[in-house]
Amino acid sequence: MKKIDGGITAVPGIRAAGVHAGLKPENQRDVALIVADTPAVAAGVFTQNRVCAAPVFVCREHLSNHTAQAIVVNSKNANACTGEEGLANAYQMTSLVGEALDIDSRLVLVAQTGVIGQQLPMDKIAHGICLVTNALHPDGGHDAALAIMTTDTVPKEIAVEVEVGGATVRIGGMTKGAGMIAPNMATMLAFLTTDAKIASEPLQTALRESIARSFNRVTVDTDTSTNDTVLILATGSSGNAEITESDGKDYDAFREGLDFACTELAKMIARDGEGATKLVEVIVKNARNEAEGEMAARAIAESPLVKTAVFGADANWGRIMMAVGKSGAAFDPYQVDVWLGDYQLVKAGMDAGFDEKKATELFSKDTVKITVDVNAGDTDVTMWTCDYSYDYIRINADYRT
Amino acid sequence: MKKIDGGITAVPGIRAAGVHAGLKPENQRDVALIVADTPAVAAGVFTQNRVCAAPVFVCREHLSNHTAQAIVVNSKNANACTGEEGLANAYQMTSLVGEALDIDSRLVLVAQTGVIGQQLPMDKIAHGICLVTNALHPDGGHDAALAIMTTDTVPKEIAVEVEVGGATVRIGGMTKGAGMIAPNMATMLAFLTTDAKIASEPLQTALRESIARSFNRVTVDTDTSTNDTVLILATGSSGNAEITESDGKDYDAFREGLDFACTELAKMIARDGEGATKLVEVIVKNARNEAEGEMAARAIAESPLVKTAVFGADANWGRIMMAVGKSGAAFDPYQVDVWLGDYQLVKAGMDAGFDEKKATELFSKDTVKITVDVNAGDTDVTMWTCDYSYDYIRINADYRT
Repeated sequence: MKKIDGGITAVPGIRAAGVHAGLKPENQRDVALIVADTPAVAAGVFTQNRVCAAPVFVCREHLSNHTAQAIVVNSKNANACTGEEGLANAYQMTSLVGEALDIDSRLVLVAQTGVIGQQLPMDKIAHGICLVTNALHPDGGHDAALAIMTTDTVPKEIAVEVEVGGATVRIGGMTKGAGMIAPNMATMLAFLTTDAKIASEPLQTALRESIARSFNRVTVDTDTSTNDTVLILATGSSGNAEITESDGKDYDAFREGLDFACTELAKMIARDGEGATKLVEVIVKNARNEAEGEMAARAIAESPLVKTAVFGADANWGRIMMAVGKSGAAFDPYQVDVWLGDYQLVKAGMDAGFDEKKATELFSKDTVKITVDVNAGDTDVTMWTCDYSYDYIRINADYRT
Repeated sequence: MKKIDGGITAVPGIRAAGVHAGLKPENQRDVALIVADTPAVAAGVFTQNRVCAAPVFVCREHLSNHTAQAIVVNSKNANACTGEEGLANAYQMTSLVGEALDIDSRLVLVAQTGVIGQQLPMDKIAHGICLVTNALHPDGGHDAALAIMTTDTVPKEIAVEVEVGGATVRIGGMTKGAGMIAPNMATMLAFLTTDAKIASEPLQTALRESIARSFNRVTVDTDTSTNDTVLILATGSSGNAEITESDGKDYDAFREGLDFACTELAKMIARDGEGATKLVEVIVKNARNEAEGEMAARAIAESPLVKTAVFGADANWGRIMMAVGKSGAAFDPYQVDVWLGDYQLVKAGMDAGFDEKKATELFSKDTVKITVDVNAGDTDVTMWTCDYSYDYIRINADYRT
């Protein structure tokens, strides 16, 4: 596996663009379009929130034949809690893109992010779709990644090459995160492209499996968005023998590449969580099973007291013990070991006699790795989060203005 | 029912004190003692956290005969994750109090709050127990309430009179909260006294029932403490016919008084949550059942995005819809109504066309009432929380120093 440049447009046959349609201030890009030269095998995974945005309904319907050719995205307005009008607007966006590209509107998927409960300014959106279609380019991935940002401070892109069945397959991806991030079966907008030849069923399975251990293992603030969407387009041009089953060597090779791309994007989301100053990697070792390992890791990653202690570089390991204890996972408190990086803080449930200065130093790095060995089984689970800082409060106390 | 002054010592036959033993700086009180003149019927409810502090083990054991005469409490050190030595120290505290009062140490209960993972300074504790025994006074409830505070900014006390079986029964109580507050079957230290004559089984039942709808419906930061403890002593001196069953008119009258006392104390905890500027009351109406109503209310009350919007007085109702949607409760999003006080923000799942200025005004009050009618059944549930402010981060980024 090799990391390469180019994001979603690293994949041959994929063009993209990001333009300013007037939703964001000051010429910032706010409408993105990703287009495959020909209809591609497509799969998607969406939010589990019962309050579900209009674009999610449209994607679910348009994906019923597992084929898509374009994805249009706008930031600044989530088109959630907008009723019939919002749903009609989301369909209208796919029609406008379909007309502009001269393809069936059912081949167009739509994703949106931003404020909940306001109707879309369709005049600006229509203008944006016109602009973005004209701007499509084989190197446009970066502009598209810029256009889907909300409170993100950096665009988030990845591209890899993997060997699949004798051919070199590329996978490109981009994502946005920042706040309202505790994805459940999906995350707040990620888009992937690949030239792998793969049938729709293994593609959907691979996407779902990769997400379970990447995007679904990221939490910024425990809040699950109404708009979470991950979409993948597979153009099939790479020349590998078609992957038709959800197992076997070729499927595994593709999955490995997809896992890597999704995990790297997921970590970018955690590191750039609203107000974040650090990426926090939480590893629970030797849980009884995957479910309990995830419960324990999530309890630590979601604990405001752990996250504020990390922000303050305070080696307050009692809060880590508290979080594991409240998680519901089974373990003996006096069998627990806790490490900060490779440095042990807790031995058999009690103070390991660590040096505070050394611990503060490790907690001050821009990536903080917390390992908790619960000694209850043999399953390891990793999650990613960020610290809680003053800026999380500042950003969210008055988001809409 | 009548609210009266005096806190826990409003009950005849109860003395209390709070003194400075040197755990907190600058002569602040840090050791409290509550004593009944004679052995009382006693009941307790404790944390569900698997990592459970030493004093909780001691209380559980000493409550096996449902009788107690004294409760000793220290702040600043939680005596959790302290192993055999911590457990021995907790027992030692009950022995020291037993000797000082000349009663069996098994009649003494102990509760602790503060930093996790450090051994108690037993010299200071022993000195404090000596001081606090000498300071016992029939009006000492307020000093005791001061001594159990950690990051609380105000002491929290209540006392009521209720008519039970022809006699006037008093119930007194005190509590502390502030952070690591998401009690599950108990809360971070609350102590109640009463002169009701009541058998141990209905007393335990009444306590458990009252807690379920008061302390267990408060959340500050979703973090469940290792030390949560609620204890009640019933002296039986009021002259009411003994309550021997967990139902009937007298039981209900007592429960009503206890419910009121617990709910008032619980609201004080929410209002004084770490960094809180407002008390937030969340009412979910017409849920399918109690469990789903609580899921929905808790999801709103625990949402960092809702709590920061309240801090910023931003009528961002989309976040309330998001929180109800992620809760797992069943409802139709386009049947939901949301009110701020008596002012409607959301009608049938969409913007009710409210005035932003008026909403900001209502969000700026020191008590914010959010009502969400999910129109899915006929069960109402209320929870209490506070907003998330810069001060929550400041207080917790470096709690230990």
